Amino acid sequence: MSLGNDTLAKLREIVGADNVLTSKEDLIPYSFDGTAALQQMPGAVAFARSTEQIAAVLKLANQNKFPVVTRGSGTGLSGGSLPVSEGLVLCLVKMDKILELDRANLTMLVEAGVTTLTISDAATAAGLFYPPDPGSMKISTIGGNVAENSGGLRGLKYGITRNYVMGLEVVLPDGEVCWMGNKCVKDVAGYSLRDLFIGSEGTLGVITKVLLRLIPKPQAKKTMVATYAAMDQAAQTVSDIIAAQIIPCTLEFLDRTTIRCVEDFAKVGLPLDCEALLLMETDGHPAAVAEEAAKMEELARKNGAKEVRVAQDEAEATKLATARRSAFSALARVAPTTILEDATVPRSELARMIRFVDTVGKKYNLKVGTFGHMGDGNLHPTFLTDERNKEEMHRVEEAFKEIFDEAIRLGGTITGEHGIGLAKKGILPKFAGDAQMRVLRELRRALDPNGILNPGKMFD
Amino acid sequence: MSLGNDTLAKLREIVGADNVLTSKEDLIPYSFDGTAALQQMPGAVAFARSTEQIAAVLKLANQNKFPVVTRGSGTGLSGGSLPVSEGLVLCLVKMDKILELDRANLTMLVEAGVTTLTISDAATAAGLFYPPDPGSMKISTIGGNVAENSGGLRGLKYGITRNYVMGLEVVLPDGEVCWMGNKCVKDVAGYSLRDLFIGSEGTLGVITKVLLRLIPKPQAKKTMVATYAAMDQAAQTVSDIIAAQIIPCTLEFLDRTTIRCVEDFAKVGLPLDCEALLLMETDGHPAAVAEEAAKMEELARKNGAKEVRVAQDEAEATKLATARRSAFSALARVAPTTILEDATVPRSELARMIRFVDTVGKKYNLKVGTFGHMGDGNLHPTFLTDERNKEEMHRVEEAFKEIFDEAIRLGGTITGEHGIGLAKKGILPKFAGDAQMRVLRELRRALDPNGILNPGKMFD
Repeated sequence: MSLGNDTLAKLREIVGADNVLTSKEDLIPYSFDGTAALQQMPGAVAFARSTEQIAAVLKLANQNKFPVVTRGSGTGLSGGSLPVSEGLVLCLVKMDKILELDRANLTMLVEAGVTTLTISDAATAAGLFYPPDPGSMKISTIGGNVAENSGGLRGLKYGITRNYVMGLEVVLPDGEVCWMGNKCVKDVAGYSLRDLFIGSEGTLGVITKVLLRLIPKPQAKKTMVATYAAMDQAAQTVSDIIAAQIIPCTLEFLDRTTIRCVEDFAKVGLPLDCEALLLMETDGHPAAVAEEAAKMEELARKNGAKEVRVAQDEAEATKLATARRSAFSALARVAPTTILEDATVPRSELARMIRFVDTVGKKYNLKVGTFGHMGDGNLHPTFLTDERNKEEMHRVEEAFKEIFDEAIRLGGTITGEHGIGLAKKGILPKFAGDAQMRVLRELRRALDPNGILNPGKMFD
Repeated sequence: MSLGNDTLAKLREIVGADNVLTSKEDLIPYSFDGTAALQQMPGAVAFARSTEQIAAVLKLANQNKFPVVTRGSGTGLSGGSLPVSEGLVLCLVKMDKILELDRANLTMLVEAGVTTLTISDAATAAGLFYPPDPGSMKISTIGGNVAENSGGLRGLKYGITRNYVMGLEVVLPDGEVCWMGNKCVKDVAGYSLRDLFIGSEGTLGVITKVLLRLIPKPQAKKTMVATYAAMDQAAQTVSDIIAAQIIPCTLEFLDRTTIRCVEDFAKVGLPLDCEALLLMETDGHPAAVAEEAAKMEELARKNGAKEVRVAQDEAEATKLATARRSAFSALARVAPTTILEDATVPRSELARMIRFVDTVGKKYNLKVGTFGHMGDGNLHPTFLTDERNKEEMHRVEEAFKEIFDEAIRLGGTITGEHGIGLAKKGILPKFAGDAQMRVLRELRRALDPNGILNPGKMFD
């Protein structure tokens, strides 16, 4: 179904002719997001500049019955912002203003198109802290972060995007504008619609403004890297740290393949003969940080770490953190197609899951690097493949099927921070079960009876 | 509509004859909750002992079309668990088992009828911490806490019940059983149904099991009380503490009326000639606590505190905390009817709101004591009245109307932690607005088309 000239004319009226793209060359950059091997051409892209424009677009969509897919920077890893064929992509990157920083209430009000890094920087400039740090934070938009409930490296101690959203302005599927939440630390008036919309992947409404919670900046931080000959030693270190009642702000893991790719790419000086690397950071009061760092180092050594490097200054800390932050890019360099997954299990099952991924990789003769958030059980098994090789892609699919089955069996989830989108639609029913699937569908139908928003995604 | 003999017989089959109450004397204790001036006789009370029994009860309710109101200990302050006239009260206090304490994943799995205190004690016994501490925690059940998304004194630093719920087992209105959430720190598979159900006040399903998140126990704590001749000095102290990047675990306020009632009741040794009292607690690493406590004391004195008493030991800390914990009981002693409200505003608007409550009390010639969570803007203006005095009760209603209008005007909410229930049904539409009301109604209708669960409450 194409959008039609009448619809395009009305879209141009609403957002201005300059803000509607329709030529094939212009549309191509909007035909995919960060997810490998998925592409779909839209009929048009419209850039909105205000809530009112978005309301008008959604009213038009209901009238003329065309599908709308909302999009920020398109860094998603589950195909959530992939266009519907010939449908409209509603792009919010031009709504990029920080509207207010309220120091008395520790909040920041922003438009949905502001990037995560801009928010983080603005908080830092005010002596405050916005903890969520998804891998794509340099370019990802806060609207996308909220829609996907993005995670990051600091989830264990500080939580994820959900924990920092106090309020949302949303345009409902029918074009009505609705505020959910406010600056109150406590508010229990009615169901928490805000929490329903966080992580709803663009299927329940278009998020136009976000009221964020900020916290005081930790006074001190200590970063260290421990390397191990055996992965189980790293896993035991993590268990021992938690048992010692320490909740580090970062507790990240890289496996052998990832370490080698990173070293090759970023030249951090990592040892190449180890099976596992842990990047550990503790932050907070200087005295607490000093004690926790000493204890973490002790536990790493007790569990047989070959080396523990404690950063002596900010520059070295940044260098060590780079090892983890560049993992995806480093892996992506070595194969035409990089499929990054986020199977997640309870912390206690991590070692088992990492071993399982390794075994499955060997079984299907695939190259896989695993890294991820060891503190919160959120793994990123990353398959290095080539989407043009159909036979290998089939083996990748089979391997993932086994990995997600195992994650579910271990009490885990099929996605820790990337979302369902298109990529995991097929396995959601097994994870969620019939009753939950029915509830999900009923809720969506209740809000978007015409199926305007992001049709075909999640469980549609 | 009465339940009928056929329904009663089937209920006895499901939960056992001993677990169904029908005589008037037996029903009276279940005809009210903690909310003043509300009472309604149910047709029967059934005590469930398992999820399966609850599923069977809800299936029967859909068949025979009778209303079901779920209830724990009935400590609610918004009439949320008040029976529907002649309907069924489903009481979960007999589902009171702690099912698992998982030290590796820092979680506790409990049945819905376990009391908050039992959970808190079990966490402490394991060297861990369950922070939410609603005023009724000695007898309130976790199911009720989750259904109301209860707050408490530690909300500012540690958050509320929602922040400690990782998973829920819920019986949906049609009798289907559904698990929402798991032990994963991160999980973004599908909408967060768990978050929709938290705070849904028994209208979307019956919560049967709760998977709770625990955290390490803070190593140290320091408690102090500051008294002020003028309320604005207390408010400025709070602002200055936050501006100094300190987030205390407790920052509680008592006004003159409350101070006098508390002193009369609990004999803590409070000065009677002050307008405001702040109870302040900081916890965490001993070095951080020492520094923060010193800074808080300094800021209190700088703002003109008449006296700052720092607890020298645990016994004195408990005594000082008693001043705040006994506020409600102390006020309740001095009048036949105590109407405790929870108007809540952004922290920056607190002083203005406290003054407004005082002015309104005088305008309507009412006795009002105000206390509450100053750190998170959650106030408890408490009217001391007599429900038999219709004329005075009318003035109380008018006063509340003005107070909630002002709360909304200041960007606040009509309920910070008590819920809507029956008590605030009338003012929710003004607060929520048309679009949000419509969404709330549509969601409820989608899940409970027969209107079985808690009809007439919230926005029904």
